[in-house]
Amino acid sequence: MTTEKKMTTEHSNTERERNDKDNVIFIGSKPFMNYVTGVVMQFTTKGCKEVIVKARGKFISRAVDVVEVARKKFLKEINITIKGIEIDSEEFENKEEKKVNVSTIEITLEKE
Amino acid sequence: MTTEKKMTTEHSNTERERNDKDNVIFIGSKPFMNYVTGVVMQFTTKGCKEVIVKARGKFISRAVDVVEVARKKFLKEINITIKGIEIDSEEFENKEEKKVNVSTIEITLEKE
Repeated sequence: MTTEKKMTTEHSNTERERNDKDNVIFIGSKPFMNYVTGVVMQFTTKGCKEVIVKARGKFISRAVDVVEVARKKFLKEINITIKGIEIDSEEFENKEEKKVNVSTIEITLEKE
Repeated sequence: MTTEKKMTTEHSNTERERNDKDNVIFIGSKPFMNYVTGVVMQFTTKGCKEVIVKARGKFISRAVDVVEVARKKFLKEINITIKGIEIDSEEFENKEEKKVNVSTIEITLEKE
């Protein structure tokens, strides 16, 4: 639990830097293959050692799909392993000012 | 990758045993709180040390929600940690005899 919290803080601190490097992919409602291509490109043309796939709420299933398709269909030759998966939840206020919780996932992929 | 495969095999071998113990919860389309109660009960009344939450496809997001609600709302007092999260994908033939892939998740919770 403590380790998890620490890691999250570390992530936030370096988040800007990471976004600049484009190695964090946030999964949303764009066409599915956009995200797969995004992940694949980071490892191939951009030469990243690590790519982080993040999602919230209903997009969590999609994030897992993206990772699986990228790993098993497009990155077979280069060995990509799942370095770690973290789940958490965030509380926020919706439009009706009601507090709601949303689950989050963070899948870290690593090139061996 | 290899470790992951090994672990999966080990899981299958002891799956029957685990199901008998009810400490594997498969997430589907039943009411949300059924699953949360299921997880909570394993740790409290049944006294399990470990509970495994499994889901496929679109139910993956729901599995994460179940784990988060169980952990943060119902099991605050007893310290439940996420021992490990595995994602994978399975190929199967749908009704039209077309091969499709479905992603899977397996979240192992542990009582400290």
